[in-house]
Amino acid sequence: MVKEPLPLDSGAALSQYTIAYETYGRLNADRSNAILICHALSGDQYAGPGQHPVTGKEGWWSTVVGPGKVLDTDRYFLICANVLGGCMGSTGPMEIDPATGRPWGLTFPVITIGDMVRAQIKLIDHLGIAQLFCVIGGSMGAMQVLQWAASYSPRVFAAVPIAGAARHSAQNIAFHEVGRQAIMADPDWNRGDYYASGRGPERGLSVARMAAHITYLSEAALHRKFGRNLQNRRAVTYGFDADFQVESYLRHQGNSFVDRFDANSYLYITRACDYFDLAAEHDGSLANAFRGTPTRFCLISFTSDWLYPTAESRAIVHALNSVVANVSFVEVATDKGHDAFLLDEPEFFATLRGFLDGCARHRALPAT
Amino acid sequence: MVKEPLPLDSGAALSQYTIAYETYGRLNADRSNAILICHALSGDQYAGPGQHPVTGKEGWWSTVVGPGKVLDTDRYFLICANVLGGCMGSTGPMEIDPATGRPWGLTFPVITIGDMVRAQIKLIDHLGIAQLFCVIGGSMGAMQVLQWAASYSPRVFAAVPIAGAARHSAQNIAFHEVGRQAIMADPDWNRGDYYASGRGPERGLSVARMAAHITYLSEAALHRKFGRNLQNRRAVTYGFDADFQVESYLRHQGNSFVDRFDANSYLYITRACDYFDLAAEHDGSLANAFRGTPTRFCLISFTSDWLYPTAESRAIVHALNSVVANVSFVEVATDKGHDAFLLDEPEFFATLRGFLDGCARHRALPAT
Repeated sequence: MVKEPLPLDSGAALSQYTIAYETYGRLNADRSNAILICHALSGDQYAGPGQHPVTGKEGWWSTVVGPGKVLDTDRYFLICANVLGGCMGSTGPMEIDPATGRPWGLTFPVITIGDMVRAQIKLIDHLGIAQLFCVIGGSMGAMQVLQWAASYSPRVFAAVPIAGAARHSAQNIAFHEVGRQAIMADPDWNRGDYYASGRGPERGLSVARMAAHITYLSEAALHRKFGRNLQNRRAVTYGFDADFQVESYLRHQGNSFVDRFDANSYLYITRACDYFDLAAEHDGSLANAFRGTPTRFCLISFTSDWLYPTAESRAIVHALNSVVANVSFVEVATDKGHDAFLLDEPEFFATLRGFLDGCARHRALPAT
Repeated sequence: MVKEPLPLDSGAALSQYTIAYETYGRLNADRSNAILICHALSGDQYAGPGQHPVTGKEGWWSTVVGPGKVLDTDRYFLICANVLGGCMGSTGPMEIDPATGRPWGLTFPVITIGDMVRAQIKLIDHLGIAQLFCVIGGSMGAMQVLQWAASYSPRVFAAVPIAGAARHSAQNIAFHEVGRQAIMADPDWNRGDYYASGRGPERGLSVARMAAHITYLSEAALHRKFGRNLQNRRAVTYGFDADFQVESYLRHQGNSFVDRFDANSYLYITRACDYFDLAAEHDGSLANAFRGTPTRFCLISFTSDWLYPTAESRAIVHALNSVVANVSFVEVATDKGHDAFLLDEPEFFATLRGFLDGCARHRALPAT
């Protein structure tokens, strides 16, 4: 727990706060091999191999994190922290407000991506790391990467924003608003004050997750995985059961999400994404956010990602080019949609590995 | 009211039923100028000029329907019927089951697009029309058009399926399932038995409408209309009010929908769409649905429609071509998304007018 105040973009402050984190691999002697992994909306600090304490499954980025993998735990020291506002141990709406002794609920201050990063800085200080070798993340993780690069560039040797954007689009805000309204429509939400009741807005959160989950996949991926296949039946039932596999899959996504995620956290974290607009913080010019940056950038997008389409990454590349930053950019061809960054995508892995190897040589990190 | 049974695809039957409809213009002496307009999911029989009895607004297709307009009420006799399962007077879950004297609710049989069309046939018989000059509709309306053409081709001189598909995709089923789950998650839904309570699942239906509404627009249209503009404020409030215009707009769409639509109808009509698969009805071959058709087809899609993308229309065109049907196809360039068929789109209007004029000459309809 950090026993000093954290000022927030809203003007409020947290008098003290906790950031829960996991590490993988070992920090080298000159503390030059640390990679900060920033997680997405529904992620947490359990990025790597090993069982998740709630789900019992592998970490969310175990495709990438592990010995010999792209984020090689034999070479790098990986840090992944639950975001401020999260629900896996970091300070957020389900935690206790020290001023009242009760869960924050909706009295928790609205936070921003900038606030999340401001809290992470304290963790990096605590670990004694002057400069991160790399900050990397997909989706909302990419927003944190961009915020790190914009606000703390001397502390970021390399930055890898994947499937991200420098601001949330109207469509993205719209989908988030649907999710929030689904939660708030659930009477068990009770204006955010549900922790003592033993019954949260599970139905609302499940609907929110279902709607969001569609946006993480491409139409092609849904067609390939499910098409119009029926779920354990030979003909439609002329009813409202989950006749189609895609319905059954979505219901499962919704139901399993409520076991590991707090509905109020969902409200706060989606709001932080909506508020993200890096250009607005710099007089309306995205280029200004990166002027004079020493950081090496690698941007990656996916052709079938319609939530954060390639045009969003390209706009960031243009801004970086305009200030003569060191930037590479790869659009990976895949039909897997936004979630491609979590999946087995050889071209994505090769891009990431090539960029990190090059940076490691420049940084004179020992090879494995 | 039709006092004879309507057999349904599910195997059930309605012992009697009502189809509520509106007409515009006058049927000519040889009854050759009738156009049946098929409405979409959230539409109804009030397609043309004149105030809607519930909303007080112009009919949903008043861009197209009226004197001198593309569907010229001085030339054609237009018929628009509320679909079976609807909630504007046609038999549906909110109407009274004659067997019990109580509203059907979830005891209403699940219906299909085929059932909707089977009920419309009786209306056309009732009006003494042997052959419709044209059957036209967008979205779910296009599905009805295709069903008409496949099942009753001698009665369809021309068919215009707009922004439609011959089967519902996995992504479309997924979005519908989110809407249904939002309704069913609302305790006021009460397993569909809410009519006597005076309180329906308004919050759930509103969320369903919000999610669906996003799919009717393109990202570009949302960006152009709203971007990240704030709603009557100069800065974000760091809260969960509708800070952004797009949030305010969506909430309004949700709230106003519940004033005019029945939640159970929404369940039944979305289900009918999901079940639609014209090829499956014809041994898996879409071409078989149209073999030997005498009908003239005009398919229209919109470049930015991601709900029923152009590929869906093109698949229908390929099927029609393979049976040497008379078909023309136009993909209209627009950034307005799926809803473009309801909006002011000159290229769309010109396409429609050209096709109808040509058909009218072939059918020897008098010019206006």
